[in-house]
Parts: sequence; C-alpha cells; structure tokens
Amino acid sequence: MASINENYLKLKAGYLFPEIGRRVKQFTEANPDKKVIRMGIGDVTQPLTPAIIKAFHEGVDEMSNVATFKGYGPEQGYEFLREAIAKNDYQARGANIKADDIFISDGSKCDTGNIQEIFGNDNIIALGDPVYPVYADTTVMSGKTGSCNENGYFDGIVYMPCNEANGFVPDLPSQKVDLIFLCFPNNPTGTVATKEVLKKWVDYALANNCIILYDAAYQAYITDPAIPRTIYEIEGAENCAIEFRSFSKTAGFTGTRCAFIVIPDGVKAYDSSGNAYPVKPLWNRRHTTKFNGVSYPVQKAAAAIYSEEGKKETAEVIAFYLENARIMRESLESSGFNVFGGVNAPYVWVKTKGGLKSWEFFDKLLNEANVVGTPGSGFGPSGEGYFRFSAFADRESTIEAMERIKNLKE
Amino acid sequence: MASINENYLKLKAGYLFPEIGRRVKQFTEANPDKKVIRMGIGDVTQPLTPAIIKAFHEGVDEMSNVATFKGYGPEQGYEFLREAIAKNDYQARGANIKADDIFISDGSKCDTGNIQEIFGNDNIIALGDPVYPVYADTTVMSGKTGSCNENGYFDGIVYMPCNEANGFVPDLPSQKVDLIFLCFPNNPTGTVATKEVLKKWVDYALANNCIILYDAAYQAYITDPAIPRTIYEIEGAENCAIEFRSFSKTAGFTGTRCAFIVIPDGVKAYDSSGNAYPVKPLWNRRHTTKFNGVSYPVQKAAAAIYSEEGKKETAEVIAFYLENARIMRESLESSGFNVFGGVNAPYVWVKTKGGLKSWEFFDKLLNEANVVGTPGSGFGPSGEGYFRFSAFADRESTIEAMERIKNLKE
Repeated sequence: MASINENYLKLKAGYLFPEIGRRVKQFTEANPDKKVIRMGIGDVTQPLTPAIIKAFHEGVDEMSNVATFKGYGPEQGYEFLREAIAKNDYQARGANIKADDIFISDGSKCDTGNIQEIFGNDNIIALGDPVYPVYADTTVMSGKTGSCNENGYFDGIVYMPCNEANGFVPDLPSQKVDLIFLCFPNNPTGTVATKEVLKKWVDYALANNCIILYDAAYQAYITDPAIPRTIYEIEGAENCAIEFRSFSKTAGFTGTRCAFIVIPDGVKAYDSSGNAYPVKPLWNRRHTTKFNGVSYPVQKAAAAIYSEEGKKETAEVIAFYLENARIMRESLESSGFNVFGGVNAPYVWVKTKGGLKSWEFFDKLLNEANVVGTPGSGFGPSGEGYFRFSAFADRESTIEAMERIKNLKE
Repeated sequence: MASINENYLKLKAGYLFPEIGRRVKQFTEANPDKKVIRMGIGDVTQPLTPAIIKAFHEGVDEMSNVATFKGYGPEQGYEFLREAIAKNDYQARGANIKADDIFISDGSKCDTGNIQEIFGNDNIIALGDPVYPVYADTTVMSGKTGSCNENGYFDGIVYMPCNEANGFVPDLPSQKVDLIFLCFPNNPTGTVATKEVLKKWVDYALANNCIILYDAAYQAYITDPAIPRTIYEIEGAENCAIEFRSFSKTAGFTGTRCAFIVIPDGVKAYDSSGNAYPVKPLWNRRHTTKFNGVSYPVQKAAAAIYSEEGKKETAEVIAFYLENARIMRESLESSGFNVFGGVNAPYVWVKTKGGLKSWEFFDKLLNEANVVGTPGSGFGPSGEGYFRFSAFADRESTIEAMERIKNLKE
C-alpha cells in the first residue's frame, strides 16, 4: 500500500502566490472592465535586452544544425557560463570563487528548496520572519518540523523576527541552529545587509559550524558601493556559506529560467561520528543524479548578460525598476504610510494603516484601487500588518497605482 | 553543527554516465588522433527539426517585446502545451487524460527522482534489474534503504531480475512492495511490454494499493500498433499509475530540456491511519513550491512537436534512429553476439562474448575499436555481462562502429 509523505499535510493550504493569483482571477472575472495593476508577485515586465535576445537566437540556431547541435550538456552547466559568472560576479569583487564552485540551475526557487536534500534531517533550520516562504515550506516537506501552531509557526524551525526594532535585520539566534537562511537584499522587506552585519553572521557560523544559505537573488539592485553584493566579500564566508543567485531579477529571466548555486570547497558538514565532509561533492552527486542541465540556448542567453552590451543594457533595466521604487517610496510616504526598503532593492515594504491585517489590506486594495500587492503575513507571522509592493511594473502603471492608493478612502 | 544526509555515503562512487565520461576523456586525451564513436550515453545527435526551430525562435522573439514578453508562467506549464499533449498523446489513443493531469517539467530525470518526495519513507520500492540507475540512486538518497551489499544490491529495495529467462520483463514480486518503477520501452534492454504484461501489472497494483511509476520516455520508438504507447491504454491504470514522458528522445530535446508527468485524479496513496489521499494535489504542492515552470520559448518549441509539420518531421528522425537500430542488430548478430531489443526501441542490448564482464568489454571496445557503449552492470547487478548500444549516432558512425566491432579480436 503506497503511503504519502505526511509532512505535506502540515502545510497550509496554498503557497502564497497561487492564492494571490486565485483572488485576482476571481476579481477580474467578476469585474472584466476594471484595469488591475499587478505589483504582487515579484515578476518583471521589461523584455529581455537586445544582446540577450541575439545570443538566445544564436543558441536556437545552433540547435538546428547537425554540426553545432547540442545534446546533453554538463549537468553543472557549460564552462563558458560558469567562467563568466566566476570572473564577473566574484573575482572582479575580490571574492575567491572559481567556475568549478558554480552549479547552473533553472531557478533559485528549486535550488533553495532542493539544497536541504544533502543535509540530515536532524539539522535545525533558522530563517527570517518574514521571508520568502519557500525556505519554511520545503523545511516542512523534508520532515524537520512538527505541525504549525496557532500563531503560524512550525515547531522545530527557529524563526528570527525582523521588525522595525531591529531594522528588519535578524539578530543572532539565542538557541542552537545548524542551517541559516539569510536573504539580502531581503524579500519581502527590501532591507540590505552591511559588511558588519554579514561579518557578524559569518563569524557566528564559523564559531558554531553552521552553514549560511545566502539568497542573493536581488543583489543586482544594490547601488551603494559599501554594501556587499556577495557574501564572499566577507572573510571566512568561503568556509561556511552557500550562495544562491538568479538571473530572474538581474536580467528579466523569470520566464526564461536560469540561476546558480555557489558552493566553495571549504564549506563542510558533519556525519554523526563528527567527521567533516565537504558539501560540494554531495551537491554534485545530487545535481548530476536528479538534474540534467539547463537548456543550451538559455545558457547562451545568460552568458550574454556578461558581455559589454549585456552589462550596459541590464544595468539600464535595473535602473528603471529602481526609479519605480523611488517613485513608490515617495508617493507612499506622502500618502501617510510608514515605508521601508525600496533602496538597493526592488521591494517596498509598508505598514498598513488603521491596524488593517495584511489580507484585509490586500482585499481593500484590490477591490477599491484595483491594485495587487502581496500580504506581508504570507511571508511569516511577523509580516502581519505589513504589505509588499514590487517595483517591477511599467512606469505608467506604477504612477497610476500610486495615484489610486493616494485616493483610497481610509 | 550542520550535518550531512548520510544516505549519500551509501551511494557508489559515481553515477554511471559521469564515470563513462571520465574514462572516455582519459582515453581521448591520451589518444588525440583516434576517432571515438559514442554509442554510450543515450544522447541524440540529429538537430531540432524546422517546425520546432521556427517555434523556438518565435518564442524568443516574444521575449524581446514588452507587449508579448512572458515572465513567470504557470508552474504546471502553459495550457497550450498541456492541451496538445492531452489531445495527441492520450485522448487520440482512447486514454482519458486531460490537460489538468499533466505537469510540464525540465526533464524525466528530475521527475523520476523527485516523485518520491511526496511519498512516505516507509514505502518499499520495486525496480527492474537492470534499469535506468536514477530510480535506485534517488531511493537511496531518500533514506529508504540500508547499505549496498557485496552483490551490488541495496537492502530495502526489491529488485526484479530481468534476464533471458523472462525475456527481460520482470515477474510480479513475491514480497510486499508499494511503489513500482516500470520502464517500457526499457532502458537499457530495449524490451517492450505487451498489453497483457501491462494489464497484469495494473491488476496487481490495484489489488495491492500500489502505485506504478511508469517511465515511457522511449514510447515514440514503438512502431508495432499492438504495443501500448501509454499505460493509460490499460483499463484501471488511471487509478494506480503515474506516467513519465520526455521530449528528449521523442524530438531531440536532450539539450533543450522539456518533459512531463501525468497524474490522473484516481491515483491515491494512504496516510498512516489508512485514509486515502489523491496524489495529484500533493505533487501540485511540491511542483508549485519547488519549481518555477519551464522556459517559455522551450514550451513553445515543444508544442510545435504536435503541429502537422512537427509530427511528420519528428517521425522521420525516429525512423532514422530505428533504421540505425536495425543495422546494429543485424551487424551485431552476424558478429556472433546474442542480441536483444532494438525493435520498437532505440537501445540494442547484447551479451558480451567469452564471459567478459561489462566494464571489461567497455574498456576493450574503447581501446581496440574506439567505440563507447554502456556497461550493462551500470544498470544493476543482473546487467553484468551485458552491454548497451544506443542507436542515436549518425548513420556513418553507426555503420563504422559496427564494422570495427566485427573486426575486434576475441
């Protein structure tokens, strides 16, 4: 008799974004004449840039010819892409990361979810509250937790509250933890981590033999040169941190799909007898056994991001979204909201007014302003009473959405 | 202190295909002047066909324009592709499968590996011996097994021997099993399953509340109209079988990456209190939480396989590979080998001569004929003394490889 993984029964009904989709669909079907502006799911709207499109077409053309056709590629990704990443994203910033440390994948959602497979189920997971919900959901699926209590917390996960008091940067845990998810620039709060903050975490991880799972999916939005773009700018991180990166927000790849994990040789975990094992070969075994590489034309397209034109073009798109964020911040502040993030980050995080709960504000905003945002409570209980707006809409919609919010009746 | 998943330590050193790659690389580096013919990894060589290339380019073009740009798509895949699959692959063959039962993914390797996540670790896994190694490796990784014994079997897995006596079609297990991997046309033996064979398995699964995990990655090679192309041609399969399909071998997508799983509503598994749960919502939760959909241009390209031109063109490529298989069968037989498979399947399975072990024959073939094949023992202990040749090379190489083998000294 086939049995189910009962850990799935502990999960709450829907993953956050499908639930938003469901409510928006219901609204638009009932109100087909209303123009809904979507600032909910953090999805980009600007097209792939010319240099990327050109390389993408070239990749497709190669697939049409027997002499240049590509079958299975290396599961870890093509050398041309891994080299470009190592050189541009790491070595150029003084971080000692080589092509061999990089594993190309089809998305950071997959990577941040799958990474737990190579670790034991006795690890205690620490994560921000609020934060990207995939970390908690996949921890539950893996069987490391008890059930969800009435406050929305799963027994067995160490939640690190992020709130106005600590500037939405989590404090070091006071209890034992083993694997620590950090996300900077943060989803959903738009907070960034200074060198000092990251150093504190790296030192803590090294002292306690923890591993930091560092989600840097939004690093391209950092414009302040003093803010680290990668955790490997911090000394010692190469011995305790795995970094997740994605082209989704860097270059508009949400529908094109390409991302990567960085695992330096120095990152180690332990067996039950206390023997240390480098983590990279374990991930390599997982990656080569359960994954068959990213589509070749997509990898070609991704490599074009690192060409001179690609860098220039993608920087312009990022600047465009950051200008949206600036407009949103200023407008929401002048509408009387308490506003966070939106600088060095594509997310603007606001406190609802009048003590509205996150989903109450979601429904009010959808029904009265026809604007879709993301309820902060969907990212964790400490997000209750907050709301996330994404800066990925087009300019006109961004301005119009802000106008509509300004005119909302309280 | 971060701990590792110790189940990984039970795995044998390398996944089969990387090990082949390593030996071939070593040989070619030492013998740069030798022309090596690769019939090892089951990788296609013929380019994507014109209809597919055209749609692929169109998909890329849509990504270049703000009006047609696609960000995140539905995690389950675009409706246009799911509908084309349901109609052409299933409804046209009388199988009652709908678009909603289909989940688009980036590969069957991922799907056959990941599927175990939604099932409990108390399930007993049954699999063919020999068979595609991913089923066993991912079972070990999931923690359902003990260690590997000296005969190459993992304690806790039920191996179903496939040999000359049973025509390489496994017998029903005599002990309790819960999840049963079946693969037809079989990798590596090239065996197909008749309606009677599949009916016997479906009846068994229904009677014992088992689930059949049916890998039909090579179904496009079935030319005999009496052989089922999908398990859902068998009555009752919609209540006990999950089917895996891929465009890799159907349409040359090994480097392009697109596949799918079919989970009908009737397939159920049980919690520890004996309550039945449909499996589809569990997979949907897994798929939407840990996966973000397949690249849009790739899905466009895949849908073109179902156009009139696409069907005609891909059928021609399949016929080309099947003609290779026929040439190989006949040549290997006239070289005195005992030959199996290679009809309705792209794999030819031979018994080595002179009692050579599989890897011994691999090294002999590589060193003396400069031909790469796949050692049968890599697919399971019962594959020892056998060898797999793939029919995916070009015609000239296929003929030359057969000539070289004919001239091998015994």
